[in-house]
Amino acid sequence: MADSLSHKLIREHLVGGEMVPGEEIALRMDQALLQDILGTLVMLELDAMGIERVATSPSVQYIDHTLIQQDNINADAHLFLKSACQRLGVWYSGPGNGISHPVHMERFGIPGQSLVGCDSHTTAAGALGMLAIGAGGIEVAMAMAGEPLYLPMPTIVGIHLEGELPDWVSAKDVILELLRRHGVAGAKNCILEYHGPGLAALDAMDRHVLANMGTEMGATASVFPSDEVTRAFLASRGREADWRALAADPGCRYDRHEHLDLSTLEPLIALPSSPDRVVPVAEIAGEPLYQAYIGSSGNPGYRDIAVVAEIVWGKRVADDVSLDINPATRQVLSALIHEGHLAALVEAGARLHQPGCNGCIGMGQAPAAGRNSLRTVPRNFPGRSGTREDSVFLCSPETAAASALNGVITDPRTLDMAYPRVREPVHMAVNDDWFVPPPPPALGRPPLLATDNTPPLPALSPLPERIAAPILLKVGDNVSTDDIMPAGARVLPLWSNVFASAEHLFEAVDPGYVDRARAQGEAGHVIVGGANYGQGSSRENAALVPRLLGLQVVVAKGFARIHWQNLPCFGVLPLTFADPADHERLTEGQTLVIDDLPAQLAAGGEIRASVDGVPLTLTHELSPRQVAILAAGGVINWLRRRQPDTEETPA
Amino acid sequence: MADSLSHKLIREHLVGGEMVPGEEIALRMDQALLQDILGTLVMLELDAMGIERVATSPSVQYIDHTLIQQDNINADAHLFLKSACQRLGVWYSGPGNGISHPVHMERFGIPGQSLVGCDSHTTAAGALGMLAIGAGGIEVAMAMAGEPLYLPMPTIVGIHLEGELPDWVSAKDVILELLRRHGVAGAKNCILEYHGPGLAALDAMDRHVLANMGTEMGATASVFPSDEVTRAFLASRGREADWRALAADPGCRYDRHEHLDLSTLEPLIALPSSPDRVVPVAEIAGEPLYQAYIGSSGNPGYRDIAVVAEIVWGKRVADDVSLDINPATRQVLSALIHEGHLAALVEAGARLHQPGCNGCIGMGQAPAAGRNSLRTVPRNFPGRSGTREDSVFLCSPETAAASALNGVITDPRTLDMAYPRVREPVHMAVNDDWFVPPPPPALGRPPLLATDNTPPLPALSPLPERIAAPILLKVGDNVSTDDIMPAGARVLPLWSNVFASAEHLFEAVDPGYVDRARAQGEAGHVIVGGANYGQGSSRENAALVPRLLGLQVVVAKGFARIHWQNLPCFGVLPLTFADPADHERLTEGQTLVIDDLPAQLAAGGEIRASVDGVPLTLTHELSPRQVAILAAGGVINWLRRRQPDTEETPA
Repeated sequence: MADSLSHKLIREHLVGGEMVPGEEIALRMDQALLQDILGTLVMLELDAMGIERVATSPSVQYIDHTLIQQDNINADAHLFLKSACQRLGVWYSGPGNGISHPVHMERFGIPGQSLVGCDSHTTAAGALGMLAIGAGGIEVAMAMAGEPLYLPMPTIVGIHLEGELPDWVSAKDVILELLRRHGVAGAKNCILEYHGPGLAALDAMDRHVLANMGTEMGATASVFPSDEVTRAFLASRGREADWRALAADPGCRYDRHEHLDLSTLEPLIALPSSPDRVVPVAEIAGEPLYQAYIGSSGNPGYRDIAVVAEIVWGKRVADDVSLDINPATRQVLSALIHEGHLAALVEAGARLHQPGCNGCIGMGQAPAAGRNSLRTVPRNFPGRSGTREDSVFLCSPETAAASALNGVITDPRTLDMAYPRVREPVHMAVNDDWFVPPPPPALGRPPLLATDNTPPLPALSPLPERIAAPILLKVGDNVSTDDIMPAGARVLPLWSNVFASAEHLFEAVDPGYVDRARAQGEAGHVIVGGANYGQGSSRENAALVPRLLGLQVVVAKGFARIHWQNLPCFGVLPLTFADPADHERLTEGQTLVIDDLPAQLAAGGEIRASVDGVPLTLTHELSPRQVAILAAGGVINWLRRRQPDTEETPA
Repeated sequence: MADSLSHKLIREHLVGGEMVPGEEIALRMDQALLQDILGTLVMLELDAMGIERVATSPSVQYIDHTLIQQDNINADAHLFLKSACQRLGVWYSGPGNGISHPVHMERFGIPGQSLVGCDSHTTAAGALGMLAIGAGGIEVAMAMAGEPLYLPMPTIVGIHLEGELPDWVSAKDVILELLRRHGVAGAKNCILEYHGPGLAALDAMDRHVLANMGTEMGATASVFPSDEVTRAFLASRGREADWRALAADPGCRYDRHEHLDLSTLEPLIALPSSPDRVVPVAEIAGEPLYQAYIGSSGNPGYRDIAVVAEIVWGKRVADDVSLDINPATRQVLSALIHEGHLAALVEAGARLHQPGCNGCIGMGQAPAAGRNSLRTVPRNFPGRSGTREDSVFLCSPETAAASALNGVITDPRTLDMAYPRVREPVHMAVNDDWFVPPPPPALGRPPLLATDNTPPLPALSPLPERIAAPILLKVGDNVSTDDIMPAGARVLPLWSNVFASAEHLFEAVDPGYVDRARAQGEAGHVIVGGANYGQGSSRENAALVPRLLGLQVVVAKGFARIHWQNLPCFGVLPLTFADPADHERLTEGQTLVIDDLPAQLAAGGEIRASVDGVPLTLTHELSPRQVAILAAGGVINWLRRRQPDTEETPA
């Protein structure tokens, strides 16, 4: 039978379950990716589990979010993470090396292997023909411990690309077009598999742009073939030996089909503040802007910055515009210097920032209040830039650069110049010394350099037989994990400290929530969400920290996949309205009651509940494994319960 | 009579007073320099004074401290400052252009002119043969309004340099040697005038290093001749026409004499946490380090970074060390790129930061707690790095680079390589478009873009006849303005808001002070200081904000000059113990009483006071002008009182 590449990759890693869309499958993970903000909790979890050396190889800890050191917290965290790497057998990529996703492609990614990462954009490595999936930190910890990664078997969407991109249109416009068509939940529980003749002209980092922002459509993964483009990318990094050819079988069928003629695209832009509010740039041309921001994992390639350098070469960006250049990796920065592009940018008035996530995650570069910021980043959720009343647009480097030059939002096709087609240098700087390998096991296990900001995780109580708790917060559709647990320079350094970060839960959504939850305490509470609840970043603390404040149940019209998986891992029950219209009749202050919870969950399907005495029908899609985890009060309790059994097994 | 260059410069700008050391003189200021943190208040003051267009030319507003934009506050401030520049006739140097002091030398400094700036390191322009003085913001505002700058006639110290620096020893070691000899108050009310044959081998940016850190010795200014070295510096920036020859008369006498044979120096380092705790690097070689930090106004030159690039070329800095590169200006960054040095640094594992003040002022790059940080910055006051329990050393770029390579503090002479002597390129990139000039007056006066964070200054009450107030805080010697009003990424963005920044007064010294002062309220209070009270940065809010909390009197063993001048400008009386031993018998909670204050101040000399009934003799050195300002409740009231008189004068 003709197979899609996604099916082949899944079959190669399948250790449990049936490959039927929606059924839970278990996948062996070859590699693991950690970033710093979420990696700290993963390391604490691994150590608490008693793991001596991780099973995934390579596992890599990247320092890319916490680069602004305004006090000792971030620097202390880097030392903690490096010590954890040495203790647990993990590679360490220190501050200045760049963003995890492109660095992983440059240095560690291998076509055909599976990768799990505690960052929602881990999917970017699909650009190399990997099966790359973002997950909650606790799931990543389990995978690193040698457990499978569990997820619903995705629907495979074949995206057939044909034609070539016109001048001034690039990869970002392709993914914006898909977002325009399908919205931020349009690829939920899907793998987006790209194929067709249009692929040949998209280089590996162009594919990264698409694979990265598949996450913005809710996709579980994005998959590209491993072809000559892939081989050239690896060869230019001295890693041609890691290449193998991978492709779907000719004539294979997909669960869903999508077609895109690249030659029909024009420059697109996502309006504030959702990645799917996409319109042609031409429609809003002439609006003023405060900032043009180039870089991030949303446009991490050499090309993405070099093309901006070519556009501004010999000119001066508008006085009123802050042109912020964020090279994604040390390797890209080095190449930009050697090829003369960095000088062109600096001399045109750009501001240069260290390789890393930076302003994409609100770590610096926040725009002025209410002023337009054009960014090549993957997300423009409200306030994610660090500015509460922000106005962030997503666009291609070409559109951002043209707008920076003119001082107003500009369709780059209207610039009076030839389109500069930029290609990567054939050889990029390669230096393995930029990375610190794990020591050989024979050297022993150095201690963790713990800090006040890495307190151990408190134990969670098991799920009760009966829930009777007030609704303390009701929100609308598409609430993101950014809304639940904010990022930004104020809060990110506290993420390793579940007590300190609790202060900031939902602060931009409802600043009174934390006090109400504290007042309610261990008696517990309920949150009511709309559709696509928990979209965006994979941050597990968006599940863990509300649980520590007493959250027992989230009832929503629907959940984003990763957050839906994170909730039971920390003992929070995710339930869905049988009738979405019921969302309207619930209000804060009402009491949700569910009796016979274990029995109802075990029976599957419908959950009979009531709100202030009026019956309410809810549903759940949890697997028996997830129900068991939930009953135990989360995955750490569940693993602890399993360990004695293991010890009783004769060797 | 044979004159020192300092005397010539002072005479050329003298508009009042006698040139007798210690007597108050009044100087005409040609140019003005504002940085962003303190410039905001200056702009508010100028606008409150009703100034239509500033008298100094050029006046330049630099954006160099507030580059980390973690929310909209800094970005909003940039827009406010740019609007103020356009309104008041000031040049604007936006974010990314670099640190005020070296940029001012590159683009605006002119030998023989006077310069006042609201930053203590304004003195750096003395490297060009300018009379460059740091002052409180309110004094800068007055100078920009066309008023003279008042200060005590300095003692002129002639520093005779001979010999040539040995390999691996550079300008930073010269100023560290002077700090070792004379301490952080050793040049109080002095001008350090450098002369002698040793000067020829110190280029303009080497001289900047010395002139910049003269401030760390308490100097009013540092003065260098304008010679062929100066001409070459200006010529390389396309400004040879601004050059004129300036030198002391042969055989002139100085008030004090100092001699330094450069050939006798070795690599030096200032231990935590004062710039004068200087020892040879060799004495502490082998200690581990967390960070090597290159840049800031303390080592801003092309050479200072290029020499580091040469040292690490083709190598990899130690895994455990964060090598942070902070190019001081856009011009320097551009040259480092073109000459291949930036690539060498990036490829050796350095972290690259945008041109600006950055970690020198606690804006990012804070070290891990208790870990050693070797920095080329001018100051290592406790906590200034952003890390409360920091351990910051001051040293040359050579010492920092050698230590970064070895992973332990290293005397660079022990490196197994020839000393790389680096010279600047003959031509540096020049682009006037990097700066926004003030519009012609004919274009009218655009409005200020005020924000919530730029509230107007509250009115201050006049000095009372009698003071009877409790001592709420007693501190020891060398308390800096950093101790009084902290910097760092948390607090700096609030400096334009005197209400919000009040929360942070003395927070590392005594976190209870603010609450005690609030409880005491308008009844007023007293602070008791040791020697050299208010050293360091010129920040006027270290005087203004305590005044708003009720501070009436500071009694100290002695004051740093700028802070001593700032206090009466905001209605706070600075008094000195007649007998410094009295400092010991005062304690917090005692009540200081001073009767007949106006009469006693007018009489000059001794002030009879009592503490809990026991007599105490204090002194003051305030001029009649300062007494009048104090009596009015600060300089804004004093100017307001003068304005009606002016209006009554017939045209």
